[in-house]
Amino acid sequence: MAHAPLRFGLIGTGRIGQVHAAGIAADPDAVLAWIADPLVEGAQRVAAAYGGIATDSAEEVFASNAVDAILVASPTSTHVDLIARAVDAGLPVLCEKPIDLDIGRVDALRPKIRTAGVPVAIGFNRRFDPAFSSVRARVAGGEIGTLEQLTIISRDPSAPPAAYVAVSGGIFRDMAIHDFDMARFFLPDIVEVSAVGTTTFDPGAREHRDYDTAVTTLRSASGAIVTIINSRHSAVGYDQRLEAFGGTGSLHVANAPTSLVSLSTATAVEARPPYEPFFLERYAVAYASELREFIKLARGEASTNPTFEDGRAALVIADAAQASASSRRAVAVDLA
Amino acid sequence: MAHAPLRFGLIGTGRIGQVHAAGIAADPDAVLAWIADPLVEGAQRVAAAYGGIATDSAEEVFASNAVDAILVASPTSTHVDLIARAVDAGLPVLCEKPIDLDIGRVDALRPKIRTAGVPVAIGFNRRFDPAFSSVRARVAGGEIGTLEQLTIISRDPSAPPAAYVAVSGGIFRDMAIHDFDMARFFLPDIVEVSAVGTTTFDPGAREHRDYDTAVTTLRSASGAIVTIINSRHSAVGYDQRLEAFGGTGSLHVANAPTSLVSLSTATAVEARPPYEPFFLERYAVAYASELREFIKLARGEASTNPTFEDGRAALVIADAAQASASSRRAVAVDLA
Amino acid sequence: MAHAPLRFGLIGTGRIGQVHAAGIAADPDAVLAWIADPLVEGAQRVAAAYGGIATDSAEEVFASNAVDAILVASPTSTHVDLIARAVDAGLPVLCEKPIDLDIGRVDALRPKIRTAGVPVAIGFNRRFDPAFSSVRARVAGGEIGTLEQLTIISRDPSAPPAAYVAVSGGIFRDMAIHDFDMARFFLPDIVEVSAVGTTTFDPGAREHRDYDTAVTTLRSASGAIVTIINSRHSAVGYDQRLEAFGGTGSLHVANAPTSLVSLSTATAVEARPPYEPFFLERYAVAYASELREFIKLARGEASTNPTFEDGRAALVIADAAQASASSRRAVAVDLA
Amino acid sequence: MAHAPLRFGLIGTGRIGQVHAAGIAADPDAVLAWIADPLVEGAQRVAAAYGGIATDSAEEVFASNAVDAILVASPTSTHVDLIARAVDAGLPVLCEKPIDLDIGRVDALRPKIRTAGVPVAIGFNRRFDPAFSSVRARVAGGEIGTLEQLTIISRDPSAPPAAYVAVSGGIFRDMAIHDFDMARFFLPDIVEVSAVGTTTFDPGAREHRDYDTAVTTLRSASGAIVTIINSRHSAVGYDQRLEAFGGTGSLHVANAPTSLVSLSTATAVEARPPYEPFFLERYAVAYASELREFIKLARGEASTNPTFEDGRAALVIADAAQASASSRRAVAVDLA
Repeated sequence: MAHAPLRFGLIGTGRIGQVHAAGIAADPDAVLAWIADPLVEGAQRVAAAYGGIATDSAEEVFASNAVDAILVASPTSTHVDLIARAVDAGLPVLCEKPIDLDIGRVDALRPKIRTAGVPVAIGFNRRFDPAFSSVRARVAGGEIGTLEQLTIISRDPSAPPAAYVAVSGGIFRDMAIHDFDMARFFLPDIVEVSAVGTTTFDPGAREHRDYDTAVTTLRSASGAIVTIINSRHSAVGYDQRLEAFGGTGSLHVANAPTSLVSLSTATAVEARPPYEPFFLERYAVAYASELREFIKLARGEASTNPTFEDGRAALVIADAAQASASSRRAVAVDLA
Repeated sequence: MAHAPLRFGLIGTGRIGQVHAAGIAADPDAVLAWIADPLVEGAQRVAAAYGGIATDSAEEVFASNAVDAILVASPTSTHVDLIARAVDAGLPVLCEKPIDLDIGRVDALRPKIRTAGVPVAIGFNRRFDPAFSSVRARVAGGEIGTLEQLTIISRDPSAPPAAYVAVSGGIFRDMAIHDFDMARFFLPDIVEVSAVGTTTFDPGAREHRDYDTAVTTLRSASGAIVTIINSRHSAVGYDQRLEAFGGTGSLHVANAPTSLVSLSTATAVEARPPYEPFFLERYAVAYASELREFIKLARGEASTNPTFEDGRAALVIADAAQASASSRRAVAVDLA
Repeated sequence: MAHAPLRFGLIGTGRIGQVHAAGIAADPDAVLAWIADPLVEGAQRVAAAYGGIATDSAEEVFASNAVDAILVASPTSTHVDLIARAVDAGLPVLCEKPIDLDIGRVDALRPKIRTAGVPVAIGFNRRFDPAFSSVRARVAGGEIGTLEQLTIISRDPSAPPAAYVAVSGGIFRDMAIHDFDMARFFLPDIVEVSAVGTTTFDPGAREHRDYDTAVTTLRSASGAIVTIINSRHSAVGYDQRLEAFGGTGSLHVANAPTSLVSLSTATAVEARPPYEPFFLERYAVAYASELREFIKLARGEASTNPTFEDGRAALVIADAAQASASSRRAVAVDLA
Repeated sequence: MAHAPLRFGLIGTGRIGQVHAAGIAADPDAVLAWIADPLVEGAQRVAAAYGGIATDSAEEVFASNAVDAILVASPTSTHVDLIARAVDAGLPVLCEKPIDLDIGRVDALRPKIRTAGVPVAIGFNRRFDPAFSSVRARVAGGEIGTLEQLTIISRDPSAPPAAYVAVSGGIFRDMAIHDFDMARFFLPDIVEVSAVGTTTFDPGAREHRDYDTAVTTLRSASGAIVTIINSRHSAVGYDQRLEAFGGTGSLHVANAPTSLVSLSTATAVEARPPYEPFFLERYAVAYASELREFIKLARGEASTNPTFEDGRAALVIADAAQASASSRRAVAVDLA
């Protein structure tokens, strides 16, 4: 390719920021130019490992005139302002999910995104997982006829700390939002949301009046039904399955094995080691593909990154799920 | 065993009546004594194949004084009267599900059942499937910790004729009722029902304002959530799966393979033949076990047959599901 | 069918004789007429359970003029004489494997069988297993191209008593002989046999200079190679697998699961219960099909039972395997 | 780590040389210093991609005094001389398998290796595959009791060109040699080799009197039997399986899936995409681990690379297999 590598300004160097830093460093079409974190030691550690200039001020990154794109991996509450800042600067931006926990703030930003013409992508990385994306392509190709039911099982390995639960926005906005986007990856036109939530095991969820266990059903305009089964813990490891059920067949995504080895003994046969522990391992390939796709987007090429509208839609569904779980009613949504 | 074989009066000789006739004939502790069907040719055919006296009148069976137990396999609308008649005669009765489509008629019968002291069992055969019953026993034995989520996927191979849909009572009372009982097999204390139904493929369902596709969530008093995913058709054959998810592990019931053979070629590997076509094949063992268990019940021995109350509870849940799907609200149920 | 049920004379009422007695009783086209065993109590027990007349003398069965066919399930050393006697009486005979442990005695009987025109079938029941027979049919139908390699893994659950090992004829004639016939089911024209045997765990095998572990390779006239892997024990239960490898794909027969249930926990996922314990469970369907097919043979209809020649061929291969394991040389065989 | 990166001299830049070049470049503890190939354009391409100085002369690498270790990836016929040259130079060497096709040349080199004290590793990369190495560790840990049978199925995706077959040394020395080493990874003390080879499909094998299909059995001093099933082609993709069968259980290595997705339709259920196409994909992780382990070896740390003696032993077994397939006799081997 004749392009110079895309110079990234990375904002935020927590767990997910480090994933993106490593991804940028590993991609021949990208380079890590600036890294900002108010805890500047984090930015410095990333700069030492992967190159780039460390700063404690995101503003310095924008002022540098030395970045071609912004990657926002800072806390959720900063996303809206940073996206707006990037758009004002004309810099394509890849922002981690969710855009915000408050749909009002998202909607306030919406007109700017619509008119500015600056590419904005939201980090729903699972769309880039080879298994999920191939199932979607095969469904689109008619391999199972009309899609009638989509079932997503999505369970984290263990509940987050109570302090995190307190500010997470709740299981729907924090965790299930990935699954809401996955639902829309297959069936964008969701019209109704019903959810049931309970608290069965997690003291932190109980303390902060959150659910640790939830089931959400989504109705699409086509009549297809999506079922999303969530739990904040899973003894077997990260549990990420999907079944697309159509009129002539179904496609299944199994959990990712961590080994090709199985054990058979007098008490149990064909036993395999537990699944991948969590998303960093399970979605390593997806993160790399997401970044490659964003590089295309930033360069004005055809790309498939989820958009600001996708990010907003997932939040609208999450809000509706929260409301449904409280009110015990189905909640209509309008994603237009 | 010192017992003489239990003499059965079988009422109804349609598809399921024939299953029971064969089961009675094959069980050394049972004998087919009388067979009644208004279409007497059906009764005669069964008598010719498996023994017993054929009649077109159920009343003649009761009057014969030559039966020890009644097996009701006639149309649903006759169940309540036949159960009452058997109880009046002091004859233990095994009645096919559902007890009735009208909860009012069931509740009218309820006091008699409660006071008569005559064993009444309802034919929720799946409780006797070796896979489901072993999962329940292992859950009860603590093998996966506290049960937090139960997921049931239950899809028939193909939609019934429109004429059947018209009188079936709808997908919840006709088909999902088995799954509602399976839910209560694990979690008897269901307190709330939410359902979503759509019509995606079946003209018969559309004509009779029924759903062909549905998802129901049940909340139990313990906080555990049950998810039931139904469809009136399934290209791959009868689809009957279950996952019990607990705090320390999960137990899965897979579909029943019809062969041990798999094929691997350049285009696909490990492909197996489709699953069992329908319930007669899939639940053959369960029907036999159900009958053996009922024989114990009729003899006053300890047994595990689902009771009249179980039959009523499943119908209450079905009604609630129907109401929820219409009203878009969760519906509370009181099964006490 | 217009036929009267075939009247069987059963000779031998040990474990396998009882299997056949139950099978005859369960088949509507067969009836158990006479049962002979020198230990007449065994014959009497079978007669009590399944009907027929018990005797301690096989000769009385032949003299009865009241049987249409003979089923030989007595000790191996009696097979040759009983087959000869049945053929002399013009009675079709199904004889358990092996015909004899001494190829000389088999060859002495051979001319009579060839000229008498009385149907003689040998009880290689595995040919009637639905999995193995469907793989053979699919191979014959060209589903995997030319068959190049056939791999059979065949392990018994546990070593027989030392006293049995002493008279068994050795692992090749006693146990692997089933696998040699399975090899010929796919590739009749075996031309060369190589075998390796060792004694790794069984004191009985060591005491009687038998092997408990063996691998045999067979070369067919077509160039296809068969590999047979045997052990006298298997911790996981009866281990009976097969892989047919062809130019365009392969077909696999897996072990028979005993349950549809799998368990996933923090230490192991997808663990299933052990396989069927032994041949009575694993090959129950095969025994019934073998019998049905023999009834056709006895009636002069087209049938697929393995013949006396098949029984002889398996013994020739077993002898060659024994010789090869001793001499450390490949041994050519001529099955014509 | 306090070490400077190990400076590698890479000799040979064909397919496998390029794999190693990429591996060296990706390993933070290694650096590509010199690259030699008589076709200097190949060396230059590698240098452009991964750094280092390109030359057409291996001698220049040795003379440079600027390499710490040698990686030999040149044609087999050059291995012996290059190993000897590296040892004379006191440079640790990792040499691709086989050491040579002629055991005489290997044995002539043997005394030098034994006395020189310079680390020599042979590139049996499969020992570093996570699946195989974990099975070996679990067997060593007693998880399945005493190892009694080891079964290796190893089939390449498609036959090599006839010109390659002509100089390959034959299926045993060229292809099965990996499996012979895998056998010795579990059971080093092989004492006897029996092999059967046929030519069933490949005109190139027929032309050059090689086999395209082979089965080898190895007897170990312990009495355990190894079975190795080879084919030069496999419609389903690279077929690499292993089963370790012990007294209390067994461990299985399945083929590597290329996707988590399976398809179920009315004609076949649970069908998955074909396996990895060939060794570069299947053993990518193994190559990286092999290199890391060699770096330890070169630094004098504890390591597990297969040794010159392992390389020699595999060739001795291959020669014995070739002799056995020709002579139709078992061939004793002495690996001491």
